[in-house]
Order: sequence, then structure tokens, then C-alpha cells
Amino acid sequence: MSAVLVTGIGELVTNDPGRGAPLGLVGSAALVAEGDRIAWVGPAAAAPAADRALDLAGRAVLPGFVDSHSHLVFAGDRAAEFAARMSGQPYDGGGIAATVAATRAATDAELRALLAARVAELAAQGTTTVEIKSGYGLDVEDEARLLRLAGEVTSETTYLGAHVVPAGRSREDYLRLVTGRMLAACAPLARWVDVFCEPASSHAFDQDEARAVLAAGRAAGLLPRVHANQLSAGPGVRLAVDVGAASADHCTYLAPADVDALAGSDTVATLLPGVEFSTRSPYPDARRLLDAGATVALATDCNPGTCFSSSMPFVVALAVREMGMTPAEAVSAATTGGARALRRPDIGVLRPGSRADLAVLDAPSYLHLAYRPGVPIARRLVLDG
Amino acid sequence: MSAVLVTGIGELVTNDPGRGAPLGLVGSAALVAEGDRIAWVGPAAAAPAADRALDLAGRAVLPGFVDSHSHLVFAGDRAAEFAARMSGQPYDGGGIAATVAATRAATDAELRALLAARVAELAAQGTTTVEIKSGYGLDVEDEARLLRLAGEVTSETTYLGAHVVPAGRSREDYLRLVTGRMLAACAPLARWVDVFCEPASSHAFDQDEARAVLAAGRAAGLLPRVHANQLSAGPGVRLAVDVGAASADHCTYLAPADVDALAGSDTVATLLPGVEFSTRSPYPDARRLLDAGATVALATDCNPGTCFSSSMPFVVALAVREMGMTPAEAVSAATTGGARALRRPDIGVLRPGSRADLAVLDAPSYLHLAYRPGVPIARRLVLDG
Repeated sequence: MSAVLVTGIGELVTNDPGRGAPLGLVGSAALVAEGDRIAWVGPAAAAPAADRALDLAGRAVLPGFVDSHSHLVFAGDRAAEFAARMSGQPYDGGGIAATVAATRAATDAELRALLAARVAELAAQGTTTVEIKSGYGLDVEDEARLLRLAGEVTSETTYLGAHVVPAGRSREDYLRLVTGRMLAACAPLARWVDVFCEPASSHAFDQDEARAVLAAGRAAGLLPRVHANQLSAGPGVRLAVDVGAASADHCTYLAPADVDALAGSDTVATLLPGVEFSTRSPYPDARRLLDAGATVALATDCNPGTCFSSSMPFVVALAVREMGMTPAEAVSAATTGGARALRRPDIGVLRPGSRADLAVLDAPSYLHLAYRPGVPIARRLVLDG
Repeated sequence: MSAVLVTGIGELVTNDPGRGAPLGLVGSAALVAEGDRIAWVGPAAAAPAADRALDLAGRAVLPGFVDSHSHLVFAGDRAAEFAARMSGQPYDGGGIAATVAATRAATDAELRALLAARVAELAAQGTTTVEIKSGYGLDVEDEARLLRLAGEVTSETTYLGAHVVPAGRSREDYLRLVTGRMLAACAPLARWVDVFCEPASSHAFDQDEARAVLAAGRAAGLLPRVHANQLSAGPGVRLAVDVGAASADHCTYLAPADVDALAGSDTVATLLPGVEFSTRSPYPDARRLLDAGATVALATDCNPGTCFSSSMPFVVALAVREMGMTPAEAVSAATTGGARALRRPDIGVLRPGSRADLAVLDAPSYLHLAYRPGVPIARRLVLDG
């Protein structure tokens, strides 16, 4: 196993609490990677020797982005629905049916090619870990198929049979399927179970239905996470905290009790401001969550309906512009925050023993992620080969 | 001069009024370029033969973006000022002095390298024409130097000696210089004259001062454009219309009389929403301008202080999300709108005789520029070589 010395790092974001705020920064830094792990991190002047060296000429390096919420396995797009929404039509989750139809109709090879292109697109923007949900199959065979394909590119696979109730099915029948035969087929292929808990949408699931889905998933060995409070200040966040979910995702509409519940728990508030951008919705109150002491993650929610952006740098810029987060808070949420939302202590941080998952910027500081919005300055740094 | 046939264009934006709204679209299209000009445009089924062919496999093609407002020749960055502003400090134009100091201190070779990297960054995002202003020299020698460097990469050079009054100089003295010796040195190196007309800033110029700058520039053979109404509903827009300026840029704060003046004139309203994004300011009312019949352009204003974004796709996405423009209106404003703001009938449109300046998208439709915010899907399409 050969060691690589990375030198010329103008600024290194380690997220190591031992190195102090903000972001455990090290200026004029170097690091050594051995295989897929970090072996050493510190000031360039103290760097050890290694088999091979790579000089980054002053660029900033940070842990690769952890995109803890995506729906990357799908066919077709919904550009026309997007254009209509920008002309004033509201979003209620109904458009998902169009993606389900296109996805069911696609072959494995077609879906695999689309997924590979999207994963490459994420990496080209600095993302090194992505969570991928099912939820565009909505029958036993297709949900399992989507998870099998997702599992070829990530270990963070999420069973989301409870995305919406498919058109033409009774809620009771479908819930029985989601918590029964479909779960049995999907549980061996997934790490997580998720549910779109949203009483404000007739397509999604209410509190009792969502609780039943999460309980069944947990009994089958899956860990819970929840689509919560996207369209209304409903029961999703409190349910997520109550069942000990790793994350409550969206949090667009929060009552004071939701903020308190998150702040008093280990459930991460995963904010997806690309969705608010692409649906012209109000942004979540990240400031209130942070000030209350909640852990905040940022993710893309990349999907063809409500946010077809795969760009974590864009999400960071939005968090700073629209949600009152400082650049350091936003970068932390997009790296270590995502890692906490996935319960992964090995990523989102750069210290000996953690994964050597790195993003490099064509810029001297992490500040440029918010300072240079829309400009593709971040990319995954590949060390091996 | 060899001809190149571009086939497999899933959707072609021509901006040719003869092909109808929106955007003179042609589906399943092809085009032929001879040297730097378009020779033929039409349905793929009717395409003529050519010496060489390039298959785009269903991608969308549009005229390259025309970024009609930038400040690309500078040294240093102001990331710390940006971070402070995101924590609540207001912008009044005072930070320009920091860039002036860094730019004056840089050698020609340093500035040339920075400029080349920025022009490459723009091209990598689909921009094929960029206007570049001076304004970080603010003395005779440095203003001329910046225009000489800008002229090495674009014919759209703008003399902006009247950017701000440099610290420690009297307004009267500096205005005499800007309209006298500095203008004499710069006029042979520029096509345009510009002035930051903003009575609300003590650093910028009031109506009478701005009028004097534009009149002197015109007398020296330069065509006028104006930084107008960025910080207040001041006299800038009406001055621009009054002197027949090609463009009034910013238009952040508009009185009803400003909208009427623009609608009744050939002066283009150039909107720069990246500035409002990066300064957390209210967005210009594009809808009101369009509904009144004004011509609207979109540009980046790429500069180290108020918007260090070089991304026209980002500007298009912001225009749709924040300014009520349809995706078609935004794409038109970013291409043919910019061309009109530069009085350039040869760009921003694809028809026989126009320049073969092309952008290609990793997407099947122009809609994706707004539908996929932050994702680097656009790039300049290079045909020769």
C-alpha cells in the first residue's frame, strides 16, 4: 500500500474539533494518504516523506462533500413541469408519478448508465459520498431493482417505498405492501428506511402511517430517516426525533416545538435549499436551528421534480445567501453534517484513520464556495492511480 | 476555409425572429459553420454535406452567452470582505480601493495570467463574448494598462476611469483627469465609456459629473454605457436614456419614470442578479421592465467585490427564480439581449452570416439552464482545430 503526500495545500479544512474553530483549519498544510485512509495531517513544514507527492499549488482542500439525501436512480426528466411551476403552478408531490412511469419503463442498463453519469457529475463537483433512495419503483420488483442499482455505487442506500401512494391503489393496500412483501424484498438491499411524512399532501403519508413504515423497517434491520415538514409544519420532525431517526430532512416549515425537539436530540436537521430554490418556496430557518443547538446538514435532494441540482457548492452558496449561515457553518454542514446524518464517523473529517475522501478547490479558501456562486471550482481529488 | 457540419442537436436556440417564439427553436437540428461564421441552420433531415461532421448526440445548442458587463482585469480577491458582508456589513463601493491597490501592484504578466484564467473559466461555462472594463487603475498609466490587457482578449473594452474617486484625491481634480489626460490615453484602447452614476455613494459620481464623463468620452469617439441605479433610484437610468447609452446596467432600484424611459428607448436594461445574490440586495423588477416593453440583458458583473461569479448559467437560473423571468426570456436576455447591449448584430443569434459562437449543453433543452441550477452543464463549443 503506497503512501501519497499532498503538498501545497493553501488551506486545509479538517473538521477536526481538536484543531479549533472554524473548521479545524490548517494553513499551508500537507497530508499523507495510505490506500483509502488518511495517515497524517499537519503543517507543510512538518510533513513526512512518502512514496509519491502531489503539489496543489496553493489550492484549498476539504473533506469531500457528503450528500446525504438524493434520488439518483430514475429515468426521464420533468423540465416542462419545472417551467410550468416557474409560471406559478404549485407543487404537491403529484408529479412523482411521471418519473415512476419512466423509471419502470427503463431497462437496468439504461438506469445504470444514467446513474453512472450522475455519480460522475457529483464527483466532478466535489462530492465523495452520496446517499441514494429508491421511491420511483413503487412495486416490489422495481423498488428492489432501484436499490440493487443504487447499491452498485454507494453503501448508503435507502428504502423509500413510502415515497407516495401510487395512483389507483388504496392507501391500506399499499401500506400493507410497503411494510410487508416490498420491505422483505428491499431490506437486504438497503441500510436505511425513509418515509415522506406529509399530511398536507394526499400523495404522501400521515403520522400514523409513517410511524408504521419506520417501525416495520426497523424490525427488518433498517435505520430510520424521514422526509419531514417539507410542505407544512406537520408531525414529521417530531416523529423523526421520537423514533430516534438519524435525520429529519427538508424542515422547511418548523414550529418552535420542532426546533426544540431537534435541538434536544441526535436527529440531524438536513436542509435541502436547492428544493426551495427550484420550487420558489420559503427557505428553512437554519439560523434558528443552529442557535438552538441542533446539528444541521446540507444536501442536494437531487431529483427530477423539485431540485435537479447535484451541486453541493450551489447548496453551500444558497445556505449563506438565503439561510443566514456563515460560510464556515455551511461548509461544516455539507461535510461533517452530512456524515452525522449518515452516522458515519469515518467521513466528513480529515484526520489519521478517516477516509481519504477529498475535495480540492480552484481557489485559495473554502470561503470561495460561497464567494463564487455557480462557478465550478470544486472537484473530487483522486489520489490513487 | 473548411465547413463543419454539426449534427445531433436535440434542440437549437437560434434567436432568429423569423423562426418564431420562443427563441427561434429548431428541434432535431443541424448547422454548418465555415470558418468563424454560420453558413446554414435548419432541421437535421435537410442538412447539406460538409468537409467534417460533429455529432452532439441530442444535446442542446444555443448562441454562446454574451456577458456584456464584467471587470475581469484585477489582482487580489476580497473573500474576507464578502464573508463580513454576509455577517451584515453594508456595501457602498468603498472596498474597490483594496482591488485598486492590489491591481496597481501586479505586473503585466501577473494580470495577463489572471485574465487568461478567467476568460478560460467563462468559456468553460458557455460564454463566447465578454465585455471588460477598466476601473481598477484610477491613474493614467494603470487605466491604460488595464485596457491594453483587456484588448488582448476582447474587442469589447470599456473605459471606466470614472469607477470611483480614488482615496485622497479631490473630486474636481480627479474628474479633470478622467475627462482629460486619462481619457486621451485610454480612448484609443477602448470602444465604450462608462461611469458609476450613484449619488448615494460618496465614492461614485452624481448626475452632472456622470454627464460630463460621458460627453467627454463621446467627444473622444467612445460610445456610452452607465452603471445606473445600483444603490438607489437615482438619476442614472434617465441619464443613460437621455444620452442614448447602449445600456443602463444594474437597474436594482427603479422608479416608474425609469421603467418608462427604458421602454421608450433603445437603451438596454442590463440586469446583474449575481450582484444582488452576493450582496443580499433586493432583485431588479425584470417582470415590470419586460411587461413595459424594455429590452433586458443579463450579465455577470464578474468582479472581486460585489459578485465574483463568472457563470452565465447561474445568472439565468437566478433570473428565473428571483426575477419572474421565464426560462426563454432569461436565455434570450443572456444571449441576444447582451448582444443588443453591445450593439452587436453579429452575435447572440444563429443564422447564416452570424458568428459561429456556440454553447452546447449536457442536456436536451435550454430549460435545463434554470432546471439544473449550479450544475456545470454549459460549455463553449469549439469547432475549429
